Amino acid sequence: MPGGTVTSPKGFYAGATYAGIKKAKDSLDMGILFSEAPCVTAALFTTNRIKSAPVVLCQARLQKGRAVAIVVNSGCANASTGEQGLADATEMASLAADGIGVSPGDVLVASTGVIGQPLPMKLIRAGISQIILSNDGGHELARAIMTTDTVPKETAVATRVDDSEFTIGGVAKGSGMIHPNLATMFCFLTTDAAVELDFLRSALRRAVDVSFNMISVDGDTSPSDMVLIMANGLTGNEPISIDSQQAATFQQALDQICIYLAKAIARDGEGATKLIEVTVNGAISVTEAGLAARTIVSSSLVKAAVHGADPNWGRIIAALGRSGVEVVESKIDLYLGEVSVLKGGRPLPFSEPSVVRVLKQSEVTIRLHLNQGTASATAWGCDLSEEYVTINSQYMT
Amino acid sequence: MPGGTVTSPKGFYAGATYAGIKKAKDSLDMGILFSEAPCVTAALFTTNRIKSAPVVLCQARLQKGRAVAIVVNSGCANASTGEQGLADATEMASLAADGIGVSPGDVLVASTGVIGQPLPMKLIRAGISQIILSNDGGHELARAIMTTDTVPKETAVATRVDDSEFTIGGVAKGSGMIHPNLATMFCFLTTDAAVELDFLRSALRRAVDVSFNMISVDGDTSPSDMVLIMANGLTGNEPISIDSQQAATFQQALDQICIYLAKAIARDGEGATKLIEVTVNGAISVTEAGLAARTIVSSSLVKAAVHGADPNWGRIIAALGRSGVEVVESKIDLYLGEVSVLKGGRPLPFSEPSVVRVLKQSEVTIRLHLNQGTASATAWGCDLSEEYVTINSQYMT
Repeated sequence: MPGGTVTSPKGFYAGATYAGIKKAKDSLDMGILFSEAPCVTAALFTTNRIKSAPVVLCQARLQKGRAVAIVVNSGCANASTGEQGLADATEMASLAADGIGVSPGDVLVASTGVIGQPLPMKLIRAGISQIILSNDGGHELARAIMTTDTVPKETAVATRVDDSEFTIGGVAKGSGMIHPNLATMFCFLTTDAAVELDFLRSALRRAVDVSFNMISVDGDTSPSDMVLIMANGLTGNEPISIDSQQAATFQQALDQICIYLAKAIARDGEGATKLIEVTVNGAISVTEAGLAARTIVSSSLVKAAVHGADPNWGRIIAALGRSGVEVVESKIDLYLGEVSVLKGGRPLPFSEPSVVRVLKQSEVTIRLHLNQGTASATAWGCDLSEEYVTINSQYMT
Repeated sequence: MPGGTVTSPKGFYAGATYAGIKKAKDSLDMGILFSEAPCVTAALFTTNRIKSAPVVLCQARLQKGRAVAIVVNSGCANASTGEQGLADATEMASLAADGIGVSPGDVLVASTGVIGQPLPMKLIRAGISQIILSNDGGHELARAIMTTDTVPKETAVATRVDDSEFTIGGVAKGSGMIHPNLATMFCFLTTDAAVELDFLRSALRRAVDVSFNMISVDGDTSPSDMVLIMANGLTGNEPISIDSQQAATFQQALDQICIYLAKAIARDGEGATKLIEVTVNGAISVTEAGLAARTIVSSSLVKAAVHGADPNWGRIIAALGRSGVEVVESKIDLYLGEVSVLKGGRPLPFSEPSVVRVLKQSEVTIRLHLNQGTASATAWGCDLSEEYVTINSQYMT
């Protein structure tokens, strides 16, 4: 569904405004996502031991698995802000609830930006009242959650199983502090399918494991991350459970949308010029394959070599070895694009221009065969450029 | 001991030459370290599952805990080179043994440089015969092991306990792929003290744990790393064991020299302009304190912020939380230099110029008090600059 977004599923509305939290006046920095019917809601949060105030609030409110809206801002993460931070997050949710006319307990909050600064509540209060919701507002919401992102990230997928058709839509943000186990990133997903809470939770966990948990920009994980899915059931189908015949279709669509958004985040990594895709085959387990793929795609040295189209493939093998997965050196095959550079642990003579050509593409594929088992996994990341450093040495100043 | 080096202890000789392995013709790229008496020898090697041929050779030869010489080269790591690599490393040791006139089994090998390329044996054979050993040759050896290092790293410490005086000397290299658990680094230590093998091994492990295992440049660990200590006993003392009265003095001197060399490596990190020192106090164990300190000093975002003197201290707290150590947010105190920015989990108003002044120094100190226990640890690293990326995107080409 080209042009699809988080408000593509039936009954979802969104809107955004510029409240003045971010410096760039031509941007958006606050938004609301709202469903006209209450939603079965599942979410995953950062594994960081320091959690932002909005994360603490959402975790408490989502124990019941239900929400109708989420209010978001960029420019300030409301993290490492003590008790005042929690009071501010609570007030922000209440302000949004009053504006929409729903119960405050059904409203969630997400904030992204600088850590350790209080939320500018004066701007938040004035900003919320300016937000106008529309059924095409997902595009604005996608822009309102951007920080160092250069492009909005949004999509939707429509699926038909027998007579029932449902849509899943999503927006995401993130371009720095991106690392497995939910990085500085948001992803808000919506669907008009009716879905049972237990299945929604397990389906989201599975989709995140093959998507957002398989991307890395810089190895840092933030206190603010969340992936959230709201299912309002307006399609009128029998709620999908693990035993439903639509369960597989739903999972597939959810995986697809999460992978699409995860790759969009990796491609838009701070300062990135290329998407790197690392596939590890022949591992003894999916866990090991995933660990190896993520370690390689996270290596600063691999990322810098790809940036400079430097055919220094030894760094890939060094990162593989460092990952700690079971390897027998004499069994390893390595391909850069379609070029075989290592076979059974022996370096092959290769034409340097052919490898440089692979590394100069905007999507660089690295493929390893460990020949130890049958498990595979794919991870995504981006190159490391001088621009990454420039962005991150001047974030606040 | 200003000007001290690996040949400062009695009976050690070294020399180096330019064999043509590195491109820079005005450099040195091969060397030998030799003791006139056989040495009790202990070593620690990379934890990377992919081990270079020299590491495999040294691990086998050091089971007996004895060596008389080590031959080294830079420019080619002889890693990921299959069986040919092991044959080449063996021949390299034999050539050196022939030249010095000792048994090949008593000679060790170390290689650093590009991974995945065969050792240029023609150059190695010609180069070895040109090396002239002298008792001031440690300075040349320090230069011969440099890759992207910008300065040689060497020192020595002389110690007297009662009537016995002994010296420990050392050289080290490393500026990229530096991360806890032995990174792309060498450290060769020598002493004229007589030391029992068991004690030498445990003393080395302890010294490495508080020095080389506490530095990080880029999170990558290489297949080639080693730290080695050779004790030739020419002082004539009773061999030092764990029960000797000199044990504590020896350990202290060894810790001191290892910390000195480790900090020299961190300070000379690729593209680095500053040394970062992170101390974590009040942790529940030394392991947790060390993990927190290393995670913070390894964070790309913290490193980039320090580079740009950006007072974005929230990244330090985010890295602390990501490290997984036991923290209670409301108990954390954070200091940048002597400036308190967070007290009991609450951000303090601070004068931005005073923090910027701290971050602009050539040594930046970050201090955390977790107030959870009594354990402390210190880790060292460097800032992340655009230059790091430039160096590492053009290493081979």
